[in-house]
Amino acid sequence: MSNLRAKFMEVYSVLKSELINDPAFEFTDVSRQWIERMLDYNVPGGKLNRGLSVVDSFKLLKEGRELTDEEVFQSCALGWCIEWLQAYFLVLDDIMDGSHTRRGQPCWFRQPKIGMIAANDGIILRNHIPRILKNHFRVMPYYVDLLDLFNEVEFQTAHGQMIDLITTHEGEKDLSKYSLEIHRRIVQYKTAYYSFYLPVACALVMAGKNVESHADVKNILIEMGTYFQVQDDYLDCFGDPEVIGKVGTDIQDFKCSWMVVKALELSNEEQKKLLHENYGKDDQECIAKVKELYNVLDLQGVFTEYESSSYDKLTKSIEAHPSKAVQAVLKSFLAKIYKRQK
Amino acid sequence: MSNLRAKFMEVYSVLKSELINDPAFEFTDVSRQWIERMLDYNVPGGKLNRGLSVVDSFKLLKEGRELTDEEVFQSCALGWCIEWLQAYFLVLDDIMDGSHTRRGQPCWFRQPKIGMIAANDGIILRNHIPRILKNHFRVMPYYVDLLDLFNEVEFQTAHGQMIDLITTHEGEKDLSKYSLEIHRRIVQYKTAYYSFYLPVACALVMAGKNVESHADVKNILIEMGTYFQVQDDYLDCFGDPEVIGKVGTDIQDFKCSWMVVKALELSNEEQKKLLHENYGKDDQECIAKVKELYNVLDLQGVFTEYESSSYDKLTKSIEAHPSKAVQAVLKSFLAKIYKRQK
Repeated sequence: MSNLRAKFMEVYSVLKSELINDPAFEFTDVSRQWIERMLDYNVPGGKLNRGLSVVDSFKLLKEGRELTDEEVFQSCALGWCIEWLQAYFLVLDDIMDGSHTRRGQPCWFRQPKIGMIAANDGIILRNHIPRILKNHFRVMPYYVDLLDLFNEVEFQTAHGQMIDLITTHEGEKDLSKYSLEIHRRIVQYKTAYYSFYLPVACALVMAGKNVESHADVKNILIEMGTYFQVQDDYLDCFGDPEVIGKVGTDIQDFKCSWMVVKALELSNEEQKKLLHENYGKDDQECIAKVKELYNVLDLQGVFTEYESSSYDKLTKSIEAHPSKAVQAVLKSFLAKIYKRQK
Repeated sequence: MSNLRAKFMEVYSVLKSELINDPAFEFTDVSRQWIERMLDYNVPGGKLNRGLSVVDSFKLLKEGRELTDEEVFQSCALGWCIEWLQAYFLVLDDIMDGSHTRRGQPCWFRQPKIGMIAANDGIILRNHIPRILKNHFRVMPYYVDLLDLFNEVEFQTAHGQMIDLITTHEGEKDLSKYSLEIHRRIVQYKTAYYSFYLPVACALVMAGKNVESHADVKNILIEMGTYFQVQDDYLDCFGDPEVIGKVGTDIQDFKCSWMVVKALELSNEEQKKLLHENYGKDDQECIAKVKELYNVLDLQGVFTEYESSSYDKLTKSIEAHPSKAVQAVLKSFLAKIYKRQK
């Protein structure tokens, strides 16, 4: 485990301990244990890329200057806020989607004796974020900017999830409602803001920069987030379940995935008919037919093409940015996701 | 309809229109209509007591001085934030409890084509609150205090809901886990903070007062909120369904209600056995046996006793408060709930 990762986990323990002893509530032993178990199950089990990247980005913005202990702690704490936000969304999304596994283990709501209480646990995860911010940033001049930032990004993510849910409902009746435009919108709002823009925005705020004035950075990160989600859609179908830690179910779940959108775009009438008849059915034969069509249409090749053209475009945009420090932040993000297998 | 109520509804329309045209998201017609319908269904259909009381309280704190148009709008907007908060909790609570009706109509998640999307709608309701605050209070010196206040109260409410859910699970195995102490804790956190403390705290913040220094006001309001919830528990069993707008289900739902807690306290061994055998069963005969026991134990009389002693105690505490304006606020709250039938 890297040094940073160990430090990051240390900060998790501190934050958790503060939260389960928050004076705003009279905890009982049972409720304290409940929260602790719920946090350990849902918060630190992912790749932690989003959280760690706040610290990495902040370091790059400081251009090599050694961070103070407080700066390390605070950037880790902000990173954890993003991990908490993600955990909150995942717990609730899994309930809404009726999912079975998450990060290689059963979804939280499927654990014995949890069930619908998981919805409230999701709410509690969400409520932990402003507590963490208050505990560690209340006296900072940018405290209110952090609150605004997290509120805005959560708003966008919830709306992304909304159009995803509505679109999937409509698509179930009529697959032709799926399009690249609607896919872009879902991905941008549901994933890109909180996964790509938010970590860098946190680092910028901590570094005393005005986030609102960094529209170019935002656009690049949203673009990168979109590329990331297209990878995700691709890996759901063609990735190795052993490597990505889950078995993809986008086809049977009728997801508005980049794969099906591209397939619709490239299909002739007969192929479209095959998609309409087989997409969204929880039946191995139907799934196989869809995957076969994806192969016939060479979606693996189309994806590789998309991947390298996105990379080139992003690289050019990044190199056009005036600040070398910001360039370094954006390049490190891009390097982390380019050609990822999981 | 009173003048204030009409004004309050006018502000609702303005807020709604801002939210469905929020530039932070690219709305489609479908998503805009979805949100509008969801808001109209879930937000303004209650008694609006919590929201209206922000305006009433603010007026009393201004000691009769005519409010400016801006002050009226802002106090209405804060009132609506509480109504939004309540709608968010109710939408999610109904999912978690598997409820059927709410405010005399089917629960939102039971509407056709809604189902689990309701969980995300709840999240969106919650996300509207900081948007409203940002749109209308960003430039006020107390903006950050409002954010902190709503965050803290939501935190407390979610934790109240958590111990309610956990306690009900445990009580299902062992009814004797229910006690007045656990009932007090559930009620205080789940209901009293957001229903009683929050409206007055909003008015105090708007009036430029430091809320933290009003610990006595907080205590009185929490006490009043507890009394209010005891009434609720009583009305669930002995209220008129036509008047309260719902059919009570606390007995079959195994709720940790003041009624069953009092009954346990007053029962002899044989009566306890009856409770253990019949409480929490969705069977008309069992429900009737429990209600019969409540009558044998004269819980109606015990409640009347509790009601008048609470009233006396609250009145004394209120009259001990140094500010006449604050006294007026607290008295108007008490008058609204004392001996209520719905």
